[in-house]
Amino acid sequence: MIIDCDPGHDDALALLLAAGDSRLRLLGVTTVAGNQTLDKTTRNAQRILALAGATDVPVAAGCDRPLLGELTVAADIHGTSGLDGPDLDVPVAPVADVHAIELMRRLLAESAEPVTLVALGPLTNVALLLRTHPQVHSRVRRIVFMGGSTERGNTTPYGEFNIVTDPEAADIVVRSGLPLTMIGLNVTHQVRATPEIIGEFHGLDSRTGRVCAELMTFFAGAYLRNFGLADPPVHDPVAVACVLDPALVQTVTAPLAIELTGTYTRGATVVDLHHRTGRADNAQIAVGIEAEAFWRTLMKAVSRYT
Amino acid sequence: MIIDCDPGHDDALALLLAAGDSRLRLLGVTTVAGNQTLDKTTRNAQRILALAGATDVPVAAGCDRPLLGELTVAADIHGTSGLDGPDLDVPVAPVADVHAIELMRRLLAESAEPVTLVALGPLTNVALLLRTHPQVHSRVRRIVFMGGSTERGNTTPYGEFNIVTDPEAADIVVRSGLPLTMIGLNVTHQVRATPEIIGEFHGLDSRTGRVCAELMTFFAGAYLRNFGLADPPVHDPVAVACVLDPALVQTVTAPLAIELTGTYTRGATVVDLHHRTGRADNAQIAVGIEAEAFWRTLMKAVSRYT
Amino acid sequence: MIIDCDPGHDDALALLLAAGDSRLRLLGVTTVAGNQTLDKTTRNAQRILALAGATDVPVAAGCDRPLLGELTVAADIHGTSGLDGPDLDVPVAPVADVHAIELMRRLLAESAEPVTLVALGPLTNVALLLRTHPQVHSRVRRIVFMGGSTERGNTTPYGEFNIVTDPEAADIVVRSGLPLTMIGLNVTHQVRATPEIIGEFHGLDSRTGRVCAELMTFFAGAYLRNFGLADPPVHDPVAVACVLDPALVQTVTAPLAIELTGTYTRGATVVDLHHRTGRADNAQIAVGIEAEAFWRTLMKAVSRYT
Amino acid sequence: MIIDCDPGHDDALALLLAAGDSRLRLLGVTTVAGNQTLDKTTRNAQRILALAGATDVPVAAGCDRPLLGELTVAADIHGTSGLDGPDLDVPVAPVADVHAIELMRRLLAESAEPVTLVALGPLTNVALLLRTHPQVHSRVRRIVFMGGSTERGNTTPYGEFNIVTDPEAADIVVRSGLPLTMIGLNVTHQVRATPEIIGEFHGLDSRTGRVCAELMTFFAGAYLRNFGLADPPVHDPVAVACVLDPALVQTVTAPLAIELTGTYTRGATVVDLHHRTGRADNAQIAVGIEAEAFWRTLMKAVSRYT
Repeated sequence: MIIDCDPGHDDALALLLAAGDSRLRLLGVTTVAGNQTLDKTTRNAQRILALAGATDVPVAAGCDRPLLGELTVAADIHGTSGLDGPDLDVPVAPVADVHAIELMRRLLAESAEPVTLVALGPLTNVALLLRTHPQVHSRVRRIVFMGGSTERGNTTPYGEFNIVTDPEAADIVVRSGLPLTMIGLNVTHQVRATPEIIGEFHGLDSRTGRVCAELMTFFAGAYLRNFGLADPPVHDPVAVACVLDPALVQTVTAPLAIELTGTYTRGATVVDLHHRTGRADNAQIAVGIEAEAFWRTLMKAVSRYT
Repeated sequence: MIIDCDPGHDDALALLLAAGDSRLRLLGVTTVAGNQTLDKTTRNAQRILALAGATDVPVAAGCDRPLLGELTVAADIHGTSGLDGPDLDVPVAPVADVHAIELMRRLLAESAEPVTLVALGPLTNVALLLRTHPQVHSRVRRIVFMGGSTERGNTTPYGEFNIVTDPEAADIVVRSGLPLTMIGLNVTHQVRATPEIIGEFHGLDSRTGRVCAELMTFFAGAYLRNFGLADPPVHDPVAVACVLDPALVQTVTAPLAIELTGTYTRGATVVDLHHRTGRADNAQIAVGIEAEAFWRTLMKAVSRYT
Repeated sequence: MIIDCDPGHDDALALLLAAGDSRLRLLGVTTVAGNQTLDKTTRNAQRILALAGATDVPVAAGCDRPLLGELTVAADIHGTSGLDGPDLDVPVAPVADVHAIELMRRLLAESAEPVTLVALGPLTNVALLLRTHPQVHSRVRRIVFMGGSTERGNTTPYGEFNIVTDPEAADIVVRSGLPLTMIGLNVTHQVRATPEIIGEFHGLDSRTGRVCAELMTFFAGAYLRNFGLADPPVHDPVAVACVLDPALVQTVTAPLAIELTGTYTRGATVVDLHHRTGRADNAQIAVGIEAEAFWRTLMKAVSRYT
Repeated sequence: MIIDCDPGHDDALALLLAAGDSRLRLLGVTTVAGNQTLDKTTRNAQRILALAGATDVPVAAGCDRPLLGELTVAADIHGTSGLDGPDLDVPVAPVADVHAIELMRRLLAESAEPVTLVALGPLTNVALLLRTHPQVHSRVRRIVFMGGSTERGNTTPYGEFNIVTDPEAADIVVRSGLPLTMIGLNVTHQVRATPEIIGEFHGLDSRTGRVCAELMTFFAGAYLRNFGLADPPVHDPVAVACVLDPALVQTVTAPLAIELTGTYTRGATVVDLHHRTGRADNAQIAVGIEAEAFWRTLMKAVSRYT
């Protein structure tokens, strides 16, 4: 598994889940601009991996902005550092001196078997990998991305942050012909970091548990301010959980398209659940989650850390 | 109250509700192409008014197609007549020899007090009334329209039939500056014609009760075939009910825009419930309904007919 | 012939040409917002007809804004009155008390033979006539409109003022299936009001000749300021001249579409001169003009006035 | 100078001009899908460099399709090989084993002074270079691209082939902030390969001269078939000539935008020559060419080859 991400509070939990579960091997982590600028998301990825003791996992920085237009970060949700809340001043391993796209290409080329790409931020890096290196397509087992929604969005009425940030990149991925699983807001809003969950992180009585609790406490405040929502949804770990244990997430097959030209709906993920448009199926769409089993999986992974 | 409509099974119930409730006066009915072609929707409006004994209510035919593009009727939902199901072979009053827009203009000009426009089909007639006769704006108390959704659509993933059929007309109405109430799928899907409801219509033991039961039985079959939905939502009567008794429908104030340029989302009603886009409020958006009280109101109105 | 217009300096010359040529009968003049607001373009039409002694030609005011969006007038080109330059303080005949659309409908219904519509402003009135009264289609011989371009525009790089002002109206007209002739900038820029032409108007030694000279003098100043162009093109009279004498204007048959969704090109008239898009022919497109013969025709018409 | 191209008949002449003029150094050639598929354009670039004896110039293949959507090649203009006409069966130097983007990055990084990028095909490679390696921006002296038009297009009414093929790539380049020169159809249509020019190539009495003559003979046939144009415009060499001798091409500074959302105008280059849109200048736009001097420059370069 390769994770492309823009940490980000929920990305952090996703990385901890991925690095702490023995069922899969985390080959590399690549970063992209999104929740914060590239330098910050890269630094944050290094810090979380250091916290997880996974300093042998290579980290490479990728694109510093979307394919088109300018970057708008989500400082209202993730703070000025991108990981506001806990003190994360840990020594980190150096970043790789190649571009994220090149690291992904190499890891794919070197792997004995096809690799799952898990994308937790805007799809800029993944799209450019597919466009510039068509020969790696056959090395990708599937792409699981957190993004979009079958219902309403969070950045615009019908647009979710990761897809709205780089709709053209999402379009490239969605039309790639590769096996695809979309983990959208319609599912991630079913797993919320309640006070009980935050209490459980605290109760692990470990440094990592405390960091998780502090991340979710900050996140909860941001969601309350921005959406009037009491318990924040925990988006990105659902994508990793879905790879660890497919039974956790219920999916349906449907046509998925990215709206590129809408005046008010640019970046909407248009999912034809009732097959009324005549377009061909091209994605697995998550529509349900075993919330309790998800939290058990996540807690178990975090409990392994000091 | 003036009703502009395209009957249509749920339009029929809405007309019966409007003509059978003593609290308001139905000044006129205008028709538009939508669920079926203009000749059929006009004929259907005449039949329902005849059934209701409301042959003194003037009926005028309006636009036979949307502002732009071609008409696509909803024969899959409403059948080839637009009111498939019951036998509706009743003698009807003649149609007015003026255009729907001219009838609306006259009724507005002649009314002693401002009039509520209730629009149950594509907004073509209403939009052209506003565009060609700006002087009537001050005679319109408010516009209540059934159309759109704050969530998913029924014709496309994010588009509802009435708005998708004529997005430019909806845009004209939405930008008119007049008081506006949107009754969308998000609310109308909360009032479903269950077998119990259909049984209740039968139990009225009247010609009109039987017609309502037969309309809803056909409608239920269409929804099951097209959406796999067991009990069909009863859209249009909610708009009339909202005028009869505002307490039946819960609304919020929000910015509402119509998507005109989207490749996959043309005709979406983009409602900024969380005020994150910076656009100004321009509509009341229905977000909840007292379902049981709604059915009591509707049953009471229908029970007045023979 | 019915003329729909928004005078406007070149509209004024077009009206004088139409009213002063014995070969055709001017049944009525309708006005639309465009070069200036509706009240001003209506007043200007009345003044020019009064100047021409054509006070028996009925004038009706139409739409005060485009179908969608707000009106932006061309005060930079036509001044604050819409006809800046000459003193036009003449007594005028009253305006008809019906809407422009209704006057056009009546004139078409009453005419013994099909009527040519000449549209010199935004196509709002013409489009709404076609949409609300489909039964008049058979009474329209053809529509000749000044608007668009096969090359560059004048309001945006690829957009001409009349079409950019109301692209949706143009789309309705272009898709109407009626015989259509487009007189675009590519042709009207071939007839320029040079100092010699202005001198010739002066030389007629009549009130109307002086008005024409003063109108063109003001127009020349506006073109010089806005486009750095020495001699202003005389757009609208070409459309009238093309009806008077088809041999004056050379046309080709081609597919014509209106761009509605472009970010920078909204309102462009997309003419497929080489038939490379596979779309069907729907218009005659003016591509050349006999400039000298055009001026002779115009001068002869103006010379008839006092 | 680095040339990114998709040969193509006129690309071939451009490569011969670049390799044959002693005033500049051709650091590398990269290829992109466009006039033909990537394997064919790469092979054609190798062949032309072999013909020119420039086998030391590194060639790298780049993107095999545009950023979004599918590739549509111009076989109607350039034939099935992309260079139909002459026999070009020459031994070629091997292609570099790095991606075009990586070769450009290295050449830029290694060059002692800033490098001019000359782009003669769709801008896919150049856009991805800028997006993935922002640090090379400072190494680019300027970008001169053949593409677009200030007037009509050749692929759609307002769209030129290179830009229509990859509008998003063009948008990235146009918004990059780098010094930019657009060589559009409005200028390249001023240099046509007349029978006299073709005769002059023959008259050089060399293998390369004959190849040029045969290329232009095929090209002339294609233009006659597709556009009814007798003498084909010679697009790409103008971009190279403009770098060799800026005095050959007259330019103006203007705002340039790429239309991405137009239904009929996608890929149009919207050049605001009269500064009426309020957008900022971002490009030099070629508006004139010294045709005779251009041909002398090209003939002199070709005459150096065997």
